[in-house]
Amino acid sequence: MANQEDMIVYSLGPGCGLEEVEEGKVYAGIVQGFANFGTFVQLNARLKGLVHKSNIIGTHEEKEQIFVQVINIRNNGNIDLAEVAPTVFRLETVTRRAKVTGLGELASRVGRDVTLEATVAQIKQTSGPTIFTLVDATGSGNAAAFVEAGVRAYPEVELGDSVFVVGEVMRRQNQLQIEVSAMEALTGEDAQRVHDRIEAALDARAEPEEIPLLIESEAMEQLRPEMRKVAKRIRRAVFEAQPIILRHHADADGISAAVAVEQAVVSLIKEEGNDLDTAYYLFKRSPSKAPFYEIEDITRDLDFALKDNVRFGQKMPLIVLMDNGSTEEDIPAMKVARVYDIPMIVVDHHHPDAIVDDYLVAHVNPYHVGADFGITAGMLGTEVARLIFPGVSDRIKHFPAVAAVGDRSEAPERQRYLDLIAEEYSEDVCKDIALALDYEQFWLRFNDGREIVKDILNVDGERDLQDKFVNLLVDEANAAIEGQMEASMPHVTEEILPNGAHLFRIDVEIFAHRFTFPPPGKTSGEIHDRLCKQHPGEPVVTLGFGPDFAVLRSRGVMMNIPQMVRELHEEIRGGGISGGGHLVVGSIKFVEGMREAALAGLVEKIGRVPVESSLPAQSED
Amino acid sequence: MANQEDMIVYSLGPGCGLEEVEEGKVYAGIVQGFANFGTFVQLNARLKGLVHKSNIIGTHEEKEQIFVQVINIRNNGNIDLAEVAPTVFRLETVTRRAKVTGLGELASRVGRDVTLEATVAQIKQTSGPTIFTLVDATGSGNAAAFVEAGVRAYPEVELGDSVFVVGEVMRRQNQLQIEVSAMEALTGEDAQRVHDRIEAALDARAEPEEIPLLIESEAMEQLRPEMRKVAKRIRRAVFEAQPIILRHHADADGISAAVAVEQAVVSLIKEEGNDLDTAYYLFKRSPSKAPFYEIEDITRDLDFALKDNVRFGQKMPLIVLMDNGSTEEDIPAMKVARVYDIPMIVVDHHHPDAIVDDYLVAHVNPYHVGADFGITAGMLGTEVARLIFPGVSDRIKHFPAVAAVGDRSEAPERQRYLDLIAEEYSEDVCKDIALALDYEQFWLRFNDGREIVKDILNVDGERDLQDKFVNLLVDEANAAIEGQMEASMPHVTEEILPNGAHLFRIDVEIFAHRFTFPPPGKTSGEIHDRLCKQHPGEPVVTLGFGPDFAVLRSRGVMMNIPQMVRELHEEIRGGGISGGGHLVVGSIKFVEGMREAALAGLVEKIGRVPVESSLPAQSED
Amino acid sequence: MANQEDMIVYSLGPGCGLEEVEEGKVYAGIVQGFANFGTFVQLNARLKGLVHKSNIIGTHEEKEQIFVQVINIRNNGNIDLAEVAPTVFRLETVTRRAKVTGLGELASRVGRDVTLEATVAQIKQTSGPTIFTLVDATGSGNAAAFVEAGVRAYPEVELGDSVFVVGEVMRRQNQLQIEVSAMEALTGEDAQRVHDRIEAALDARAEPEEIPLLIESEAMEQLRPEMRKVAKRIRRAVFEAQPIILRHHADADGISAAVAVEQAVVSLIKEEGNDLDTAYYLFKRSPSKAPFYEIEDITRDLDFALKDNVRFGQKMPLIVLMDNGSTEEDIPAMKVARVYDIPMIVVDHHHPDAIVDDYLVAHVNPYHVGADFGITAGMLGTEVARLIFPGVSDRIKHFPAVAAVGDRSEAPERQRYLDLIAEEYSEDVCKDIALALDYEQFWLRFNDGREIVKDILNVDGERDLQDKFVNLLVDEANAAIEGQMEASMPHVTEEILPNGAHLFRIDVEIFAHRFTFPPPGKTSGEIHDRLCKQHPGEPVVTLGFGPDFAVLRSRGVMMNIPQMVRELHEEIRGGGISGGGHLVVGSIKFVEGMREAALAGLVEKIGRVPVESSLPAQSED
Repeated sequence: MANQEDMIVYSLGPGCGLEEVEEGKVYAGIVQGFANFGTFVQLNARLKGLVHKSNIIGTHEEKEQIFVQVINIRNNGNIDLAEVAPTVFRLETVTRRAKVTGLGELASRVGRDVTLEATVAQIKQTSGPTIFTLVDATGSGNAAAFVEAGVRAYPEVELGDSVFVVGEVMRRQNQLQIEVSAMEALTGEDAQRVHDRIEAALDARAEPEEIPLLIESEAMEQLRPEMRKVAKRIRRAVFEAQPIILRHHADADGISAAVAVEQAVVSLIKEEGNDLDTAYYLFKRSPSKAPFYEIEDITRDLDFALKDNVRFGQKMPLIVLMDNGSTEEDIPAMKVARVYDIPMIVVDHHHPDAIVDDYLVAHVNPYHVGADFGITAGMLGTEVARLIFPGVSDRIKHFPAVAAVGDRSEAPERQRYLDLIAEEYSEDVCKDIALALDYEQFWLRFNDGREIVKDILNVDGERDLQDKFVNLLVDEANAAIEGQMEASMPHVTEEILPNGAHLFRIDVEIFAHRFTFPPPGKTSGEIHDRLCKQHPGEPVVTLGFGPDFAVLRSRGVMMNIPQMVRELHEEIRGGGISGGGHLVVGSIKFVEGMREAALAGLVEKIGRVPVESSLPAQSED
Repeated sequence: MANQEDMIVYSLGPGCGLEEVEEGKVYAGIVQGFANFGTFVQLNARLKGLVHKSNIIGTHEEKEQIFVQVINIRNNGNIDLAEVAPTVFRLETVTRRAKVTGLGELASRVGRDVTLEATVAQIKQTSGPTIFTLVDATGSGNAAAFVEAGVRAYPEVELGDSVFVVGEVMRRQNQLQIEVSAMEALTGEDAQRVHDRIEAALDARAEPEEIPLLIESEAMEQLRPEMRKVAKRIRRAVFEAQPIILRHHADADGISAAVAVEQAVVSLIKEEGNDLDTAYYLFKRSPSKAPFYEIEDITRDLDFALKDNVRFGQKMPLIVLMDNGSTEEDIPAMKVARVYDIPMIVVDHHHPDAIVDDYLVAHVNPYHVGADFGITAGMLGTEVARLIFPGVSDRIKHFPAVAAVGDRSEAPERQRYLDLIAEEYSEDVCKDIALALDYEQFWLRFNDGREIVKDILNVDGERDLQDKFVNLLVDEANAAIEGQMEASMPHVTEEILPNGAHLFRIDVEIFAHRFTFPPPGKTSGEIHDRLCKQHPGEPVVTLGFGPDFAVLRSRGVMMNIPQMVRELHEEIRGGGISGGGHLVVGSIKFVEGMREAALAGLVEKIGRVPVESSLPAQSED
Repeated sequence: MANQEDMIVYSLGPGCGLEEVEEGKVYAGIVQGFANFGTFVQLNARLKGLVHKSNIIGTHEEKEQIFVQVINIRNNGNIDLAEVAPTVFRLETVTRRAKVTGLGELASRVGRDVTLEATVAQIKQTSGPTIFTLVDATGSGNAAAFVEAGVRAYPEVELGDSVFVVGEVMRRQNQLQIEVSAMEALTGEDAQRVHDRIEAALDARAEPEEIPLLIESEAMEQLRPEMRKVAKRIRRAVFEAQPIILRHHADADGISAAVAVEQAVVSLIKEEGNDLDTAYYLFKRSPSKAPFYEIEDITRDLDFALKDNVRFGQKMPLIVLMDNGSTEEDIPAMKVARVYDIPMIVVDHHHPDAIVDDYLVAHVNPYHVGADFGITAGMLGTEVARLIFPGVSDRIKHFPAVAAVGDRSEAPERQRYLDLIAEEYSEDVCKDIALALDYEQFWLRFNDGREIVKDILNVDGERDLQDKFVNLLVDEANAAIEGQMEASMPHVTEEILPNGAHLFRIDVEIFAHRFTFPPPGKTSGEIHDRLCKQHPGEPVVTLGFGPDFAVLRSRGVMMNIPQMVRELHEEIRGGGISGGGHLVVGSIKFVEGMREAALAGLVEKIGRVPVESSLPAQSED
């Protein structure tokens, strides 16, 4: 027996195997059970030995800690122990010498035992084993642990834990999988160490490459740090198997932005070794009905996310809003997300309300750097997508131009993005593509139309198909617009306001076809464009109204719609007035029974607004 | 050769094996086929023997019954037979001596052959084997039988049959499964015996435990037998793998009732050894649009049920209606259910029409025992849930209080349920939870929002999350209500009726925001509450109307709305008038073009109704 | 060494094995790689040999073609080669002698290597192997090829290619599957030969049997060639695993037509050895909202088809339109289909616009042979279904009678189809079934209700269930119609037009219950029928209108609705007038604000139309 004066008692760390146990050394163990010939003692989760009854010192209970010396390790792996009771000793932890394998290296380890340190990204209880999706610095993978059919293995291991795993790499239906022989949720320093190491590695992996923008743009260079932040957060989500929900404005600009990011994320998911099904459940894109993220939207997203969390053990998602999300109308939904610790990102070019930033992990917005909506969401989304997955550039580099003409950007970046692709797409073709997107999205309602939209945008290099399809959609869209104008234009009424502006009014519900393309807002816009052309150089306001709403378009009239709405809300009691938008383009809502009062009040205000003294004689298209 | 005078001819019962065959004995067999050296005779589905041509007495045809004596059983299991032709004999059936294994014991029989007697609960034809879901007295399990890929095995076995099964217990992708080597649909006495035994055992297992109610309540004690009947029927459905469809009123009371039962059923399904996916397809909860089970609802439910029946061999479902289902508006749907033998259960607290009971297997309703709607569906549902699965009590015991304040119960049970949970939830918190449920369900539309609703009700003991979420939802709900009142209240008109009551009218479609929370009915109620507070001690009627409907709320006016509706239907020709509700709270529908006549007629009637002489000076909240 | 003067150099065709290689012969090979002892040369995708360094003539690069003589074939299959450099030679291709197995014969080849020639009908990348669905002259089957988990095997093989496959027939989860050891996309003549052979065989297999019509009908005999063409195209789709989308009018006639074809197609899919799940994803039936195939419908169908194509490698579908599809309103959708090369078929009995035939691969329409809408879609669909799968006849032979009475056919075929089933179904029962279908479809909205509809039509021979269900639905439908008439009839206004016709007007939106059965069109029709009965022998026009539409029914007034609509469109500026239909039954749409002008113009035109001089005194039911 060793000299107890300076005895070292070893504690076998998680995953230590027989190769870490040495004869003669003393270990801390836990009494596991009793037989008539002795006492079984557990040295760690994987190893146990026997103390023959002749070698027991005192009487013990199950789960009691005792110290034991290793007398003999037999050829069959059985360990003979003797109890010792040192009075003075030092405790020392034995860490496993076995090399920790990275999840990215599993393919070369099929049929072999591996040791892993990872964090748990998903826990799915199947009717058979429990499947843990693991993430480490090098990649991700699935580990199957079985106790009993349908029973949760290692119930103490929870989503997000750092774990130590020993198992064999198997190919199951040709997918790599670790068949777990031991798993342990790390605690204290071990957990911290593994967590920190993976965290640091993921953080490093998530860092986007340094690549130049597609064009020169001072404003966008200033936005670069925030765009990198967005790209990095999205890359991390992919590396950690966190689902991504992308919600976007259902117009050509919003679609361009969102599809760019979709292409990048799906490419990255595939590069991580996942199949298409995984890409489908880890990434969902949905056009939004309203120009903001409504309480109804988050309710639906939360409903599905929680069900997936419970049923499939998925992580709660990352929510990305594009071409919307930057105004206070989004706050209620953001509050809900915060209750559930759901991170949110916004990439938008609408005038932001500062308060939204309290709820966001990142927010790219040209107004933050003194630019305006002329830097469209499609431009921003395309550059963010390139930071997420640079290889996507060639497939999406024409999106900003489509977005720019679709959203009538007047920023200098518009022309630069058009120049970038001038050999392939003329400005007119870009306009056609934008109109085709608007028209097709109208019929898609709020489905993503993933493949259709890719064909319209020509992601896959099938220009012939794109040409045929876009031309067809543009023809249909224009015919529909002509039909609508034929019905509406004769009913437009005109008056000259005190400030000299032309005011045109049209009831777009009773003098237009309903539930078809173009919808009321676009109908009003089209009417306005035509009237502007008929009155070159003159100030024009067009008011398209329905029972409980009005849409305002204007040229050369220096309105401040949000302020007018605030005033009308105060002045018209029981009008239920709300609304807003940009300064000179916007909409207003009221209760149906107060329409006359609301419109009268609005027109009265418009008539008092100053008009621009010098307008270009020819209105732009 | 045995003496034929009192010869016994044995008939081998289904599943008998070689161990039941004795040399020397005579058995009834069926000629199976011919070879040049003899005739093959089938003793039962599993055993056949050979009669050498020298031992054949007459000439036979296939499928003919003959009697054979066992001459020799060889080591390899071959049976040598000789034909006998007794003139006098007794027929005796040999039953298998092998122990019948219960489906609940399969886990301990992996790798071994078992004999089962069970009934067939589901038959699913896969592209490989046919999967039979079996149920017996001890549990349920799956048996796979294979003839040819995609071909139905044992086509003579039908859903609901009693069967005798021999097979090996296997673990397939870690699920237990019986690989069938023989299956036989029992007939006659055998079928009856197995059926009766399983029936009796299921009946006994389904019997709920005797547990006390959460509170003292004379009325609810009287309802106990019917509640037990409901609980028992639901437990049986779980034990028999019969899908359950739970439809409920989409308000706080209905949600509380339904979620209580949902928790109990899902717990029971899991306790039966099923995984979460099974729980999802065996139990579906849906809030209803209307306050009754509409023809559109049953059409949808039937469509899915029949498809699941054909495609996945599922049983037709049990339909449970909660917080609706007790009035004659439900009869058309119930008639459809009856055509398809779909059993229906109602747990409701609306005034029942007796006729519904012709269509129900059970119906819990406080009016049946002289109580009224003050015993809410949430109270009843919670107690039924506890009978289904007592272990659920702690997680749901606060539901009745939430339901009570949500439905403004004035029954004494309200306070008792509040007292029960007073340490955890104050009355105000219960009101908040009820409002949060109403608000969130509005945005969930008619999705169940399973996990969201669980969080609002705090099923999983996460009080912090509940507090944060409920507070957020209540803030949003109240802000929305304030916005609606701001728009509506200025448009309320008042008149004093001949009977002295205040009549307030408001057009809730043109003087309120549409398609948002609060909807027209709740808007009317909120207006009524505010007007009652402004006119303490006075009789008040509030009439919120739209183009083709009106919602009536009243205090202190002794109306009988159903009767008024009947009279108006008679009096106003072409008015298309229908409706109803409680005596003093209800709604009325008419065709839009007859609104003025319908409202005038209604107001005229209200003006003639007596008012209560003494009202409490202060209206309740 | 052989005499080079007339040397033959052999080129080993795809799939040739060792048995096709002969010692002494010279083969063309491709340099595959180098070792220090020699050069490896590939003789075809499966065979390679070694040229020892002593037998190499020049220096070569990888992928270079060289000629080699076979010196020795060792017992282990290794091939020793020597390079030769003939100056004069003939090239000759060696084709594999191995018997090509048909996909229909796989069941008898389990565990054996087979050689196949087939075309690729689907390519699905799983997370494990790539699954190719193959089709040949004898049937179809799946082939699994594995390179690396989730990586596309044989990426050069594309959908539609002709391929040569060598592999082992396995049973995987009891489904037959070929484990591919070699696959080669054939090119040039080989591809053409295989393609042509399969094409010819499929064409022959797809040819419908020669069976007589259920009844005698000159018109339908004339339509027989086109019906055969439709049936053949649909049969080919099944044989080639091409998905079928069947869209149809949502009334009794359209349902009958579509369900007949559904039964035939599903039977054929099953006969091909597929399971029910395959039948569900290969065949989808959807009732259409509008009486034509709208741009919204094709958008939705295209969205799903493209996603299935990308995600599951499915072929683009065949679209079949029944009881609609023959008018110019369908053209926009057809143009979209054409952009994607989606073939379309129409079986309709509406008056066709000739232009649709530019977009169709087949079009059955009674107007093409001088008959009219009295030959209903249900009659045509039933006969087409029988050509697709004759065994379906007995289950659907009563469909034409139901369709005939449902669509009020007055063609002589009506009575013949009624006579055909007179012993089982009386005319009244057929009417009941038609009404039950209309009523139930109303509540099914635009779901197919597959099993419900089968029960109403009694496809499975459960007459009792049918009787009970139909009677219930008819009772409910009639009660609903009565309720609607009670509300509407008192509001009908009458005027006598200049031409002597009675004009009845009814606002079916404000004087009828909305969003319930019967909907506005059917309500108008019911009113018209009652008014006709009240005015026997007199000309009657009924105009049921809403805010932006009017439905026209007439008797004895020789209107030409399409022409009136065209005139009104010209005459009423800003009316947005469109519409059409048959000559004397149709509908018209306008913008809500121009309703008075539109109706006035319409009535004025009706008043100038000649009326029929002699009407039967008794109107038909």
